[in-house]
Amino acid sequence: MQLPSSLLENAVNEFAKLPGIGKKTALRLVLHLLKQDVEAVQHFGDSISKMRKEIKFCQRCCNIADADICSICANSMRKQDIICVVENIRDVIAIESTQQYNGTYHVLGGVISPLDGIGPDQLNIETLVSRIQKEHTQEIIFALNPNIQGDTTIYYIQKKLQPFPVKVTTIARGISFGGELEYADEMTLARSLQNRLPVESYVAGGR
Amino acid sequence: MQLPSSLLENAVNEFAKLPGIGKKTALRLVLHLLKQDVEAVQHFGDSISKMRKEIKFCQRCCNIADADICSICANSMRKQDIICVVENIRDVIAIESTQQYNGTYHVLGGVISPLDGIGPDQLNIETLVSRIQKEHTQEIIFALNPNIQGDTTIYYIQKKLQPFPVKVTTIARGISFGGELEYADEMTLARSLQNRLPVESYVAGGR
Repeated sequence: MQLPSSLLENAVNEFAKLPGIGKKTALRLVLHLLKQDVEAVQHFGDSISKMRKEIKFCQRCCNIADADICSICANSMRKQDIICVVENIRDVIAIESTQQYNGTYHVLGGVISPLDGIGPDQLNIETLVSRIQKEHTQEIIFALNPNIQGDTTIYYIQKKLQPFPVKVTTIARGISFGGELEYADEMTLARSLQNRLPVESYVAGGR
Repeated sequence: MQLPSSLLENAVNEFAKLPGIGKKTALRLVLHLLKQDVEAVQHFGDSISKMRKEIKFCQRCCNIADADICSICANSMRKQDIICVVENIRDVIAIESTQQYNGTYHVLGGVISPLDGIGPDQLNIETLVSRIQKEHTQEIIFALNPNIQGDTTIYYIQKKLQPFPVKVTTIARGISFGGELEYADEMTLARSLQNRLPVESYVAGGR
């Protein structure tokens, strides 16, 4: 695809670097921006540069924040002695949108994955351990994706936490609400049989 | 979806204004940018603002250009007395990529579409007519999308061109290469029957 202008080409190439955006989509986006006001496009560019430059990470839980401490950690209405351990900020947003959780988070920034060259040292695990030690945390809830990497990460962190009197749990794994047994994979089905619940607790929890 | 930072939220909202990009995709793109270097993201933002601010439109054909005259109009190897009339710059790129056309273009910036409130005055039609008068153009090739708006625009411009000794053609419409008769709509099939070609010219042109 040959473009008639180097300015246009630069902008298209920048957009095409984003995940899931190819050259044709990038061109469509850039031509859309070309039709907007100069000020609107300036604002678009500035808000992105500014976001990257000025955004902070919470010093306590590694979540994205505007200040040194994120709004969740700073909220005294939330239970500060429960920590939900998640992989990334998208998971924080997903859990927050359920409106069912009232504790704090700890964002690992990934999971242990030797094949991708990610070891424990690249994740926010040390900060989690020292935080639990310092804050006398009551409970850790692991909310990691149910796969080998997630399970490895849980196992590794759990070992590290053995010296501390903290309750360690993980979110339930089983058949999704609205899912069909027939289409569930064997692993999921086997686990949900193993971890079967008494019906009373299911009914009480499912309300 | 509640985001933990207003900077993040601004950036996500800006991305979500782009066509075909919803809030979730916007968040994915922004979190991808967050992982990049500050300089790389600064460059992304700047190249977009700069593109919008500094890009020019060719004074002759209204194509996008880095200078006052676009690279196609400035190219003396191309036939300057043939003009291909297109709706927008994406069509220029599509025709250029065939490497079969060696004339110049004229970008209308849209087609006549009363339902969308677009009349002839909002399009680059006056500049086309005065250009043909001044440059003694030999041939005009309409390459507009085959629909009511495209046909209306051709009809309108053709009327305007009647005083001038210029050959007016339109790109062939018919069954697409690789298409199947069975699935062609009646309009396309009827037109391609009406405008049937002698097999010799088809073979010569199709090489």
